[in-house]
Formats: sequence, C-alpha cells, structure tokens
Amino acid sequence: MTMATTTSPASPTAMPKRIFNFSAGPATLPESVLLQAREDILSIFGSGIGIMEHSHRGKEFIRVIEEAEADCRTLANISDDYAVLFLQGGATTQFATIPMNFLPSGKTADYLNTGVWTTKAIKEAKNLGSVNVAFEGKDCDFDHVPTQEELSLTDGAAYLHYCSNNTIFGTQYKTLPSSDAPLIADMSSDIFSRPLDINAHAMIYAGAQKNLGPAGTALIIIRKDFMETGAAGLPSMFDYRQHAAKGSSLNTPPTFGIYVIGQVFKWLLNQGGIDTLNTRNIEKSALLYDAIDTSNGFYSCVSKPECRSLMNVSFKSPNADLDAKFVQEALDNDMSGLKGHRSAGGLRASIYNAFPRQGCEVLAQFMRDFTKANG
Amino acid sequence: MTMATTTSPASPTAMPKRIFNFSAGPATLPESVLLQAREDILSIFGSGIGIMEHSHRGKEFIRVIEEAEADCRTLANISDDYAVLFLQGGATTQFATIPMNFLPSGKTADYLNTGVWTTKAIKEAKNLGSVNVAFEGKDCDFDHVPTQEELSLTDGAAYLHYCSNNTIFGTQYKTLPSSDAPLIADMSSDIFSRPLDINAHAMIYAGAQKNLGPAGTALIIIRKDFMETGAAGLPSMFDYRQHAAKGSSLNTPPTFGIYVIGQVFKWLLNQGGIDTLNTRNIEKSALLYDAIDTSNGFYSCVSKPECRSLMNVSFKSPNADLDAKFVQEALDNDMSGLKGHRSAGGLRASIYNAFPRQGCEVLAQFMRDFTKANG
Repeated sequence: MTMATTTSPASPTAMPKRIFNFSAGPATLPESVLLQAREDILSIFGSGIGIMEHSHRGKEFIRVIEEAEADCRTLANISDDYAVLFLQGGATTQFATIPMNFLPSGKTADYLNTGVWTTKAIKEAKNLGSVNVAFEGKDCDFDHVPTQEELSLTDGAAYLHYCSNNTIFGTQYKTLPSSDAPLIADMSSDIFSRPLDINAHAMIYAGAQKNLGPAGTALIIIRKDFMETGAAGLPSMFDYRQHAAKGSSLNTPPTFGIYVIGQVFKWLLNQGGIDTLNTRNIEKSALLYDAIDTSNGFYSCVSKPECRSLMNVSFKSPNADLDAKFVQEALDNDMSGLKGHRSAGGLRASIYNAFPRQGCEVLAQFMRDFTKANG
Repeated sequence: MTMATTTSPASPTAMPKRIFNFSAGPATLPESVLLQAREDILSIFGSGIGIMEHSHRGKEFIRVIEEAEADCRTLANISDDYAVLFLQGGATTQFATIPMNFLPSGKTADYLNTGVWTTKAIKEAKNLGSVNVAFEGKDCDFDHVPTQEELSLTDGAAYLHYCSNNTIFGTQYKTLPSSDAPLIADMSSDIFSRPLDINAHAMIYAGAQKNLGPAGTALIIIRKDFMETGAAGLPSMFDYRQHAAKGSSLNTPPTFGIYVIGQVFKWLLNQGGIDTLNTRNIEKSALLYDAIDTSNGFYSCVSKPECRSLMNVSFKSPNADLDAKFVQEALDNDMSGLKGHRSAGGLRASIYNAFPRQGCEVLAQFMRDFTKANG
C-alpha cells in the first residue's frame, strides 16, 4: 500500500486556527516558539540552511546549544557544580541508566511510588539492583504524595528517587522529600513551572515533551561530584561523564529538539522567569480547582487537596458516561485532550507552562455549564 | 548571562535564500519536506494542534507513524517477516544495544572495520562481549572496503556487522559481505539511496540525520525471528522485542522526528522510489568524480576506485593550505560543509538523496575553476 499523498499545500500561509490542547504530553508549546521554528526550519541565522540540516559541529548549532545551556543556567540559577546535559531519549531511558550508573551491587536505592511512572522506574531499577520502595502509593490509590513521616528510608541508601509531579493522578510534592542519600528527581512534568531547589538534588531529569519541547530529548541537571561516582565500563551512551565531557555532543545530539528547548528557555526568560510562571500556574489551576470545588460534588478530584498538581488537574464527573460526554462536548468546543489516562479513567486537564490562561477560563466556564446541563 | 534574544521576526515569510549544504550529517533535507513541516508545525491535518504538540496516543500521530511504516515497507519492499521500528537515539546507541541483545557469553561476533564509525561500534561491542575483527581497514588507511577473500570469519559467529557506506573515507560496499552468521548493517549514510537486499540481512539500522530526517531518531529493520533471540532481562528501552510489541510507542516516541522521516518517505516515493534515486545518485557523484579524475592529479580520492561512495565524495587538493582555501572560496560561493572530517582532513562533499543535482553541477565547475587558478 502506497500512502504518498501529502497533507496540505506546501506554501507559506498565515496563522492557522489553533485550539486549546490539554494533552498531557507531547503538549502545547508557546505559539511564539512555533512561529520562530517555522522561520528557522528553512534558514537559521541567515545561514541559508535550516536548523535540522546544520552540522552539530558547525558554528550555528554550537551557538544554539551554548545559548540553551546558558539560558537554562540563568533560568534556574544553576551553578557550575552541576552539568547541564541534553540527551537522546526520554525519562524512560533514564529509569534504566540511573541505576546502571548509581546503584552498585551491595547498595539499595530508595524509591517513592506515587504513580504509573514511578512504578515503571521501580521496575527498571529492580531489574538492575536492590530497591526499597520507601513509600507505596498503590495502597491509597495514589491519592497523595507522602509526607516525610510516611517514608521508610534505608540507612546508607545509594539514592532516593522521587517524581515531583504525577501527571496521571494529578498529585505534586509541595515540600521536598528529605534523606541523607543523594536526591534524584524525575521532573518531566513540572520542571521550571515553579521555584525549585537545584542544590538539594544530586540529579534532576526531565523528558522534554511536557514543559520543555518535543519528545525525544531529555534535560539532565546533575551534580558533577555525584556524576563522577557512576559505574565504570558502561556503554558510552549510558555514561553521564562521557556526555558531559563532550558537551552533550558525544555523538550527533538531537539538534532540533535542543533548538526548540532553547527557544522555550528564551520564552520563559522573556515571560519573566520561573517566579512569574509559578504565579500564572497557581492562577490557571485555581480556575479549574474552583470549578471543581464549587460544583456541589458533581466533579471530584483524584488528589487530596494538600497535594493537588498545578500542572495536571485530574478529576471525574459522576460517572464514565458523563466523562465521555464531557470529552466529546469539550472537543466540539475546540478543547482537545481532556480524557483521563487509560490507567485512571475520568478527566484530566494538563496545563503546563505554555498552556494559555484563556484556555483555563474557557474550560472552567464549560465545566460550570456542563454541570448545569447534566447535574 | 542572559541570552534571551530571539533570532528572527516571528511572522510568516516567503522562501528565504537557501545555499548548497554539503554537510555529512545532519544534512540537507528535501525542500518540499521543510515547507510541509513549516505548515504542520502550527496545525497538522486541520486539527488546530501542531505536530510536535499532539499526543502520541492520539489519532493524528497514530496516522503519522502508521503511514511512515507503510511507506517505508512500500519503498524497500519489506515483508512482514521484518519489524520496522523508529527508536530514540542514533546509531551510537545501536552500537551498544546490538551486542547487549545478540552477543551472548560464549559466542563471538565478527566486525568489519572500515572507518571511524565501525571502530566505535567495535569498541562498544568489545566492552560487552567477544569480538573478532574479521577485516582491519586501519592497515590500509581505510582506502577500501574488503572483498570476500579479505575476510577472516569466525565459525558460528553470533553475527557479522558491517557499515555499508563510510562517510569519512568515502567508501561503499558494491556487493554484500557474505557469512553464515546473521548479517547486521549500519546503513546510516546510504539507506534508501540504492537498491538494497533486505532479506539478506538479520538487521539494518540507520541514524536518521543523513538520509532520513533530523538527528535523534533511528530506523531499525529487523527480522522478527532474529529479534526473538535477543537476551532476556534487558532494560525495556534496550529490548527490541518490547519496542516492536508496542509499535515503537513503548514510551513517548520522538514524534517530530518520525513525522519528518515519514515525510521523507513520501518524498522518496513521489520521486519514483529507490531506483530513481539510485540513478540520480550515480549521476550526481559522477559529476564530482569526473572533476577529480580529469584534474591531472590536482585532486585525489581517499577511496580506491572500485569502492567509491555515491554519498560522500572524499578527496584532497595538493596540500592542506589549498584545502583550506578551497573550503573558504566555496563558502563564499554559497557552498557550505566541504571541509573533510577532522580525523581524515582534506575535502568532502556529502550528497545524500535530498542533495540537489544542481549543487553537484555547481561544485564540479567550481572544482575545475579552482584547479585552473591554483594548479
């Protein structure tokens, strides 16, 4: 079967109609970044060569990756004690390479299980070494992230791994878990959406496709002295030291992904930085949580109130039929991606940094109208 | 240091000036594909959501990846005996995951060393198991790929690994190496540029950034019964079976990379398929090799005549000063990327599928003019 028809005319057009995209990831990107990419895809910096076509050893791409790293350091105030890496793959690759590097035989790593992604991280780690599940969220249907008192930590653990925001159940840590062991965080779904204490962490990683850019690139922020403790003799692509020594260009890096992430960093700085985004994210999520809390029980949250996520508002209507009706009617009103994850059901609005406030206002009004019509 | 300035105005523009980009990879992409991407980046299929922003579980991206696989199978006549996978990372990741999967303890893999990339592949494999270098090209400065008579194969080898085209030295196999062992080919730099015998191979892999699309995605064509012999207990991301079972969406795949690769497949089919490209590539490279062969020894090739690459024309002028002058004057004439790889020096013109014939004509004339002026 040949499927060689193209999808739309190959000529420059004006701005197409855009709808509100509540997808959990890949997710909405800043419109100004997309418009910039549209220019740079044919020729960047007036070079006559598009961003995807430039050699990773040429001065144009070196400018792109150096600016991306510098902007990232500015944005989150990252010191030279940390390496900033842009690696191929997403968080799932990190689920394996973290224990490959930092979980030696004879040591145990602590993991906090707060959802589907930490469950996967634990599975990969158990395949490679000794793991203590220091909090098991399955027992409470993942309705909250643990308090410090709920943790059963290992003395002398290799590290403590947690996920700062759980996209599926809509929970988020408001205070950091604490341990004597090095702290490793999967921040794929809330990185740079609120102030974060880099220096409390040995390593932070994030797949790009929620808050940073296109799928297929991961951002790694890793303390150099911790990085140096990684296992010897690993395949080069799984050895953080080798990537750091080559400035993320050990082999051909995912140049376009790094370019888009760099543009998102510029957008974040131009917006006013993380504090501004944090304020905006609190307001955006409050619009939706208010619609839930004032619905007289029509909508309910998955998460306990004290750990509600600012990024993923996971909720349910009274039953699955109404959930399905909600998703369809929202789509008819140009709001896409509101169906909950297949493992949790219900409804979910993912409203990362780049998701516009106006979309939350429109959805909140829709939620109220839907309650009136179906309550 | 804040580097938050953007690079060019964020408004749709007409076609910018484009130059001839001879980069070895990332490399020139078909202009019609870039124009299509420019449209789809803001909204694909009239969805109001850009290709980078669509969920990998949504119908739009599922259409993209299903069409990409179908077009790939049509293009190279790939039977259902083979899985077609789009994975994160490039060929360097495959250098490790191939021996992790297919080189068990007690077995030896044969590798043919024909350049820098096979040297790296051998290094990764030796780190993980027993390797026999069945041809050592270092001894002849990589000036040719081996004939069958030059191979010292292992009885009962786990597999035979070769690289079909060597970008740096500009050599290319004209006939397949033969072995009783399963044949694995790194085709990163010449896939779909000439007819290829899929069924002779257990596995073919290619980083996308030369002949297929943007860096950060690899195409894998693997015989299913061979795939099933992979080692048990690997991290899921390094296990081909798990990727195949999930249609390359074991985790969030590199959606934009797969989209661009899919568009390149459509372009290849619209051009007339692999045979048409092969004819065109023979003609394109002949323009440059003729300029070398008629230069009265001013230019010389790295490769022996019988294995000259159709994709990478590696050559030298009489000395390094003239090489540098050549590169600069070519750049002044809108021809970029002609400097040889740092490990080989000299000059190199990479002219993959998407590189236009006109660029070869212009370069050939420039080469003649340069000879006259400097010979």
